[in-house]
Amino acid sequence: MSGRPHGESALFPVEQALVTDGGGRIAPLAIGFQTYGELNADRSNAILLCHALTGDQYAAGVNPVTGKPGWWDAMVGPGKPFDTDKYFLICSNVVGGCMGSTGPSSVNPGTGKPYGLDFPVVTIRDMVRAQAMLVDHLGIETLFCVAGGSMGGMQVLQWAASYPERVFSAMPIATAAKHSAQNIGFNEVGRQAVMADPDWRAGRYLEQSVRPEKGLAVARMSAHITYLSEAALQRKFGRKLQDRSAPTFSFDADFQIENYLRYQGVAFVERFDANSYLFVTRACDYFDLAADYGGSLARAFKDTTTRFCVVSFTSDWLYPTSDSRAIVHALNAGGASVSFVEIESDKGHDAFLLHEPMFIATTRGFLEAAAAARGLRAGA
Amino acid sequence: MSGRPHGESALFPVEQALVTDGGGRIAPLAIGFQTYGELNADRSNAILLCHALTGDQYAAGVNPVTGKPGWWDAMVGPGKPFDTDKYFLICSNVVGGCMGSTGPSSVNPGTGKPYGLDFPVVTIRDMVRAQAMLVDHLGIETLFCVAGGSMGGMQVLQWAASYPERVFSAMPIATAAKHSAQNIGFNEVGRQAVMADPDWRAGRYLEQSVRPEKGLAVARMSAHITYLSEAALQRKFGRKLQDRSAPTFSFDADFQIENYLRYQGVAFVERFDANSYLFVTRACDYFDLAADYGGSLARAFKDTTTRFCVVSFTSDWLYPTSDSRAIVHALNAGGASVSFVEIESDKGHDAFLLHEPMFIATTRGFLEAAAAARGLRAGA
Repeated sequence: MSGRPHGESALFPVEQALVTDGGGRIAPLAIGFQTYGELNADRSNAILLCHALTGDQYAAGVNPVTGKPGWWDAMVGPGKPFDTDKYFLICSNVVGGCMGSTGPSSVNPGTGKPYGLDFPVVTIRDMVRAQAMLVDHLGIETLFCVAGGSMGGMQVLQWAASYPERVFSAMPIATAAKHSAQNIGFNEVGRQAVMADPDWRAGRYLEQSVRPEKGLAVARMSAHITYLSEAALQRKFGRKLQDRSAPTFSFDADFQIENYLRYQGVAFVERFDANSYLFVTRACDYFDLAADYGGSLARAFKDTTTRFCVVSFTSDWLYPTSDSRAIVHALNAGGASVSFVEIESDKGHDAFLLHEPMFIATTRGFLEAAAAARGLRAGA
Repeated sequence: MSGRPHGESALFPVEQALVTDGGGRIAPLAIGFQTYGELNADRSNAILLCHALTGDQYAAGVNPVTGKPGWWDAMVGPGKPFDTDKYFLICSNVVGGCMGSTGPSSVNPGTGKPYGLDFPVVTIRDMVRAQAMLVDHLGIETLFCVAGGSMGGMQVLQWAASYPERVFSAMPIATAAKHSAQNIGFNEVGRQAVMADPDWRAGRYLEQSVRPEKGLAVARMSAHITYLSEAALQRKFGRKLQDRSAPTFSFDADFQIENYLRYQGVAFVERFDANSYLFVTRACDYFDLAADYGGSLARAFKDTTTRFCVVSFTSDWLYPTSDSRAIVHALNAGGASVSFVEIESDKGHDAFLLHEPMFIATTRGFLEAAAAARGLRAGA
């Protein structure tokens, strides 16, 4: 994976090390990124899109690694809510990832070998620090908007807290200001599945030319169930059998849902690094924005002038609406400008990645109002 | 495990083979069981307790294998709802299990080696067939009650459908008349975790003196999350750290929930056979009672005279109340005598195994009314 070409990249020299919350030091630091649209003359139309757990910088168009549409292709492009005719969009791979940004599969300059578990455990704030370095590198002072769902939404919240003056508007979507015990539990299952695979080799598998494919596939299968609602699974699969008219009384994938999950596992292993999976899930588990502000989430957003649009989906049980309400309450307590939209959908957590008309309309409306407030002209 | 002593056992000779729904043949057939209390003179006070996925025949008292209280010790004993001073309680290990009933770890008489995956895939109906053989063996014609939760509840429903004249009353608890796509999905994750472990050896690990401990532990961790509600996890663990005041920025079990789940995995492996886990989860996945009755669940209970008490728990998301309602609707359509109690609890699916006062009172009340209708005298 690490040998594959990845669009654009910003390389920060050793002097510009990323010092992590855990006291680690990442240098040199590469940030893989993509941009869409054009930056306007006064550099006021830049939007940072933050990807979710296993997403990447290929938000729109065709992902060159998978050959499939980018993860937010429904949302990003000419005439779409994140309108590439109006905005300059930046999307970067998170630090700790495996798509061009420095992560555990990168070469550790101290040893000449892949970092593996010697890579520092990063936090959501570390991811955002790296993004801020990229935004600086691109010569942009203030972002017109920072938007993202799930782990991307955590980054949005962190941006608004860490750099309030640099964020004109923010869209945290299907996310939470801290990981719940259940969230941590599911992530831990995934990590244990990876680490249980003898081909994980205590994280040193790349040097030994093996990969913990089975463990990572199990991790993905488990996580994938949490991305969908029970209703969506029932509608899509129910108890339908796969290519057969009667059960085989065996452990074959008799049911379509089994076949689907196995496919999700296998396809994921093709595109994702197992150690990166450990690091990105860990970053989410450590996320507890209020903890950095004396336990008060409201204090994280004190005196903010950022305009917020918080979005949740009714059938999302991974980051339920109650998590979004907690964010909204904290913003309200600080007198922030905040819209909150709970979108009726039976598609579960993944709804933010799918073609949801109400979500698309909400995003378009929020951005247009923010653009008017910002004095952005169409096409400018 | 298979070498350990297990309470009582009924051994059915080769002539009394259990022919399974899948066309398999299990002979000889051993059924490990326990009884509590005394059978009365007219043999009218027998209650069959059906255990859940990884339960066993040790419903009450101390489980000799784990040294811990039996799985329904809160419910079974003198003066408890399943009152051993009034009733004769029978609890047997399911066929396919690993606690004294014939299962994949038993010796296949055809090869002299453990069955492994050559054991026939069994269904809930096969489990109930084996229980009926045991009840015959004990000389009992009619059961005063058949009760159980989760997979045990499926057996209750199957008993009521297959042998309506032998079931005076029935308590299907925290269960469903068919497995949903989400239920199947979680089970498939567990099976894949077991099968991904190289020590599984295509199911032949016992002959090779290894056991797929890591894979089975991951399966258990994943399943365990589904047994608890998000609220219960939050109340019990939240984001509390384990034996430390600050996160370690590592993959150690920083959070109590991680430590708890790891412990659940390790403890489970001590007491359960990996292949049995495959078979019992598969039996649940295949369960779709209506399918055996032309797609009509009501037809499964047509003209039944059994008295039913259906119980669900508000925070059970594995077998939510809607699953119980579907059972109640089918029973109502057939004009059955049915009580339905949805119990307010934030403890999730496992609530039926815990000390829930409303559940205990409900069970006591239902059994006392049924005993009066049956003409059972106290202590008789």
